[in-house]
Amino acid sequence: MILTMKHFILTAALLLCVAAASAQPARRGAPKINDDLSVTFQVMAPQAREVGVDICGKVYPMVREGDGPWRVTTDPLEPGFHYYFLVVDGFRASDPASKHYFGTGTDASAIDIPEAGVDFYLDKDVPRGDVRLERYWSPSLKTWRTAWVYVPAEYDNNPRKRYPVLYLQHGGGEDETGWTFQGKTDIILDNLLAEGKCEPMLIVMDYGQAGDFAKILLEETIPMVDSRYRTLADPKHRAMAGLSFGGGQSWSIGLKHPEVFSSIGIFSSGMFGGVGAGAYAPFSVESQLPELLADPAAFNAAHDVFYMSCGLGDPRIEHTRKAAEALQAAGAKVHFSAWPGGHEWQPWRKSLHEFVQLLFK
Amino acid sequence: MILTMKHFILTAALLLCVAAASAQPARRGAPKINDDLSVTFQVMAPQAREVGVDICGKVYPMVREGDGPWRVTTDPLEPGFHYYFLVVDGFRASDPASKHYFGTGTDASAIDIPEAGVDFYLDKDVPRGDVRLERYWSPSLKTWRTAWVYVPAEYDNNPRKRYPVLYLQHGGGEDETGWTFQGKTDIILDNLLAEGKCEPMLIVMDYGQAGDFAKILLEETIPMVDSRYRTLADPKHRAMAGLSFGGGQSWSIGLKHPEVFSSIGIFSSGMFGGVGAGAYAPFSVESQLPELLADPAAFNAAHDVFYMSCGLGDPRIEHTRKAAEALQAAGAKVHFSAWPGGHEWQPWRKSLHEFVQLLFK
Repeated sequence: MILTMKHFILTAALLLCVAAASAQPARRGAPKINDDLSVTFQVMAPQAREVGVDICGKVYPMVREGDGPWRVTTDPLEPGFHYYFLVVDGFRASDPASKHYFGTGTDASAIDIPEAGVDFYLDKDVPRGDVRLERYWSPSLKTWRTAWVYVPAEYDNNPRKRYPVLYLQHGGGEDETGWTFQGKTDIILDNLLAEGKCEPMLIVMDYGQAGDFAKILLEETIPMVDSRYRTLADPKHRAMAGLSFGGGQSWSIGLKHPEVFSSIGIFSSGMFGGVGAGAYAPFSVESQLPELLADPAAFNAAHDVFYMSCGLGDPRIEHTRKAAEALQAAGAKVHFSAWPGGHEWQPWRKSLHEFVQLLFK
Repeated sequence: MILTMKHFILTAALLLCVAAASAQPARRGAPKINDDLSVTFQVMAPQAREVGVDICGKVYPMVREGDGPWRVTTDPLEPGFHYYFLVVDGFRASDPASKHYFGTGTDASAIDIPEAGVDFYLDKDVPRGDVRLERYWSPSLKTWRTAWVYVPAEYDNNPRKRYPVLYLQHGGGEDETGWTFQGKTDIILDNLLAEGKCEPMLIVMDYGQAGDFAKILLEETIPMVDSRYRTLADPKHRAMAGLSFGGGQSWSIGLKHPEVFSSIGIFSSGMFGGVGAGAYAPFSVESQLPELLADPAAFNAAHDVFYMSCGLGDPRIEHTRKAAEALQAAGAKVHFSAWPGGHEWQPWRKSLHEFVQLLFK
């Protein structure tokens, strides 16, 4: 029998009334992370013939016992944040028992495997900033947009103080919510600030795959932020960073506008290679950054931080490392870091954590 | 062939690079609202035998032509916000082509059918407030929580002014994001404030189905809000409202604590009846509100606004109307409103829109 929406809502509501006991909604049948970092999934799909879980590049077939849910336990997974999908008779679906995050172009399921000894992105009892949803009009797109803005705890208590701003972009198929929900940006900053390890700053997270994003960012987003917040509105106090697709934008927009941004972070971009032929033009300093070769001293004077990073398990790693070395050989003061992990949020959290400690000194 | 995650991400990312042209992420195969307010859905599920859409209490079987997607066009739907599910070989899934909202206990698909001539919850070119994500520790739950707080545009420009606060709760199976994403609370308030139709106020939206919520709200949330914001921290400047399950909480917590709240809003609660036997004790003023009968004058002196509402298509409507009449007969100054629509967000948006205009006068 197919339950109608009405019955389902009533059932779900009654169950939740009884079952909910944590701070976040209880989800029946939520995936369970085991001690060895394997994950056990279960799915109710009584009429399906074939069910699997697609995670970390592998589809695990699920098995059903009697009338119960389909189940499978994966191999031990890498620590980090992994999008996944259920595959039910060939239909790719998000898991009803998982929180969904906008990624891979849809509201996708994900599981966050903890990394032993790594707690810089976990909630701690420190002064808490907040993340503010700012709706604003885009004249070029003729539509309303929403920027998410991290504001440090001290901001409201220092009404005369002005703050530097980091513009921080998501990856392809993600959106303005990614750096908060997946990336834990506010938690990372709150923890660093409590330890005195970075400067207080605003961080603006916006949607970067709409229209002419360079025009939107430079002519619409930045003026909106400078009008609504007490910013230090000059290039020395403005940075741009991004992951993957957003890393490419940090190059094409951030690095190409030194009159706007003096610090740049490029996390796991495919622009240096590793993402298949044709996605980007082959990288060379000559073709992509002739201004560095023309006048390294002027380039370095204009750039306080030029940061690049990549996961060691990411196909982009060797290309990124070589690009960083070529840039260094050409005279740029590139800070390059490599982290365990593939093309996912754990290296990006670590990149953000390191990058912001270098900024606005 | 089942695509692996890696291929899927690459494909999705490339498509998005090309296709995205609006302010929000493009979603391939997104449901289309037709002129007659019917909706056309499509789903790619090549190996499925039976696919349907469960929306507004009806399951619409989908039909597939050749190798293409499954498709169906519904009957014309009521204006308002409708959760829905795909049913693929009996598996209830959210639609990969729809934005997901936390409702019915999961990240559910939904479609928002516009209502002709009704624009109070649509973005307008007015001074914009924001919604702030406030993370805070719950000693009783021993976990971190996140409250979403609407802050009016004028707040940051009036550093010495203090503000009244409305505590606004979601329904069963929803969470602290509901009143922003589904309810459009900040848009409704921004529009009203621009017209001078309500008082500037803070609105706190928190998750209400965890632990002892009365204790959390009274002993943890309110003190957190009063410490982080410039509030008017007295009952005359504090209100509580909620929808459905949250409406019941507004009664059991808000109305029962006149030393904390002086105004109460109860939208579409099942506590008056209409949700099946046994869900709530039968309603009577004698049993549920003896303090009103004991001293109507004292009760009214303590309550500035006592608001109740329900959708005309909601099975709760006649029970709610009768309860309001019984309360009025017992001397309470109940404001009762009924709106077109069922048990969904359109009546709740209208209730909020009306309720906040009555507050803090």
